[in-house]
Amino acid sequence: MQRYFIDQVLSSGQFFKITADDAHHMKNVMRFRPADTFHVVDRQKSTYLCEVTEVDGDINCRVLSTVEESPELPVEVSIYCPLLKGEKFDWMIQKSTELGAHEFMIYEADRSIVKLDDKKQKKRLERFSKIVKEASEQSRRQMIPNIRFVPAVKSLDFNTHDRLLFAFEGNALNPATSLQNALSDLAPGSRIAFIFGPEGGFSDAETELLLKHHSVRLGPRILRAETAPLYALSAISHSFETPALD
Amino acid sequence: MQRYFIDQVLSSGQFFKITADDAHHMKNVMRFRPADTFHVVDRQKSTYLCEVTEVDGDINCRVLSTVEESPELPVEVSIYCPLLKGEKFDWMIQKSTELGAHEFMIYEADRSIVKLDDKKQKKRLERFSKIVKEASEQSRRQMIPNIRFVPAVKSLDFNTHDRLLFAFEGNALNPATSLQNALSDLAPGSRIAFIFGPEGGFSDAETELLLKHHSVRLGPRILRAETAPLYALSAISHSFETPALD
Repeated sequence: MQRYFIDQVLSSGQFFKITADDAHHMKNVMRFRPADTFHVVDRQKSTYLCEVTEVDGDINCRVLSTVEESPELPVEVSIYCPLLKGEKFDWMIQKSTELGAHEFMIYEADRSIVKLDDKKQKKRLERFSKIVKEASEQSRRQMIPNIRFVPAVKSLDFNTHDRLLFAFEGNALNPATSLQNALSDLAPGSRIAFIFGPEGGFSDAETELLLKHHSVRLGPRILRAETAPLYALSAISHSFETPALD
Repeated sequence: MQRYFIDQVLSSGQFFKITADDAHHMKNVMRFRPADTFHVVDRQKSTYLCEVTEVDGDINCRVLSTVEESPELPVEVSIYCPLLKGEKFDWMIQKSTELGAHEFMIYEADRSIVKLDDKKQKKRLERFSKIVKEASEQSRRQMIPNIRFVPAVKSLDFNTHDRLLFAFEGNALNPATSLQNALSDLAPGSRIAFIFGPEGGFSDAETELLLKHHSVRLGPRILRAETAPLYALSAISHSFETPALD
């Protein structure tokens, strides 16, 4: 069922309007007509079954009922990753959104190949936000991950997180650093900051800083920069989204 | 360290030649010179540290020593997936190779969007093989996954596999079908056939056939066709490549 996000709080029976891009999409792409139904996620991350009541400039709708679902990872995973070359970053955030990422922090790595001025960052963020929004709708999330630019590793503040995990290529041959071990004592609700390097890997200075935290390996193979976050999120889903926790 | 695959059996001290594309790559891309070292994986999936002895039309080399490593998944995972639109299939096989896939079986799904005649299949396989070979070198595998076209689901023979896992979108809301459960009794060395649908999902006929096997969910979110195999392989790595098994 088609899904949209709305920045207001809904309740059963309520009438509301969908406007702007989503209204355009419903009208001209999905060809919605009165009585057609769809899902809407409101600001409180509640999902509702809704129906179209009238199509004019906007889409006039009514909330029919609440939808019980829990599509979000039981732990909040913040993906720290520098910009990557070409389309790699675009699809990393698209896939990571499908896989349940909570937010994306684009930090400037010492070996970052791609560097943007403020104006270019702003334009890029607009595109990234569109990719993440569409992936959230398609994968049936109850939230749209936030995405923004943050400073270099030495200036990052991880105090709001319960654990910082550092995907360190140097661990590929060290089974003791398995992600299993690093996750074993984390309870649902935990906030994980997972930091990934650029194509060229971390600098010695970054590695020295990050080795103070939990460094993990993502299996014994060497993963590309854009693949590592997908492994991490899939493994975390596999660990936490078991029957017992669902 | 740079890695190449060679279709012969090597042993310590042996002299051998690298020819054709790999020789071209070593000479003109990597600019290898005598005494430069690199890794070679031979036909028996053994890895050797080698050095260049002379660069002429070919690359003349010598085996220095054996390299102890175990980059392969403890279970063999055959990815059954139809062709996908655009570049999606290309990067699915690249990423799945990084993540340890054993082989790729391209079956014709009832709802396959992309269909190719034999001539086009042959050309496509050449490109796929190149992608898989390069991903195997880059991710430091000890084998290059095989990739080929196979018939439709109703004609597929899974008798050489210990288990057929069926990634069924209809299970997204059914925690009891977690991949954890489906993997729990599988020992290292098991052969898993993991079947994934096209963009439009499985047809009713395919679903009916496949529901006789283990149908699993890949977390509660809806993954795109090209994302599902990456989740599956990452989760299997996370389950089997723990310290105990390494």
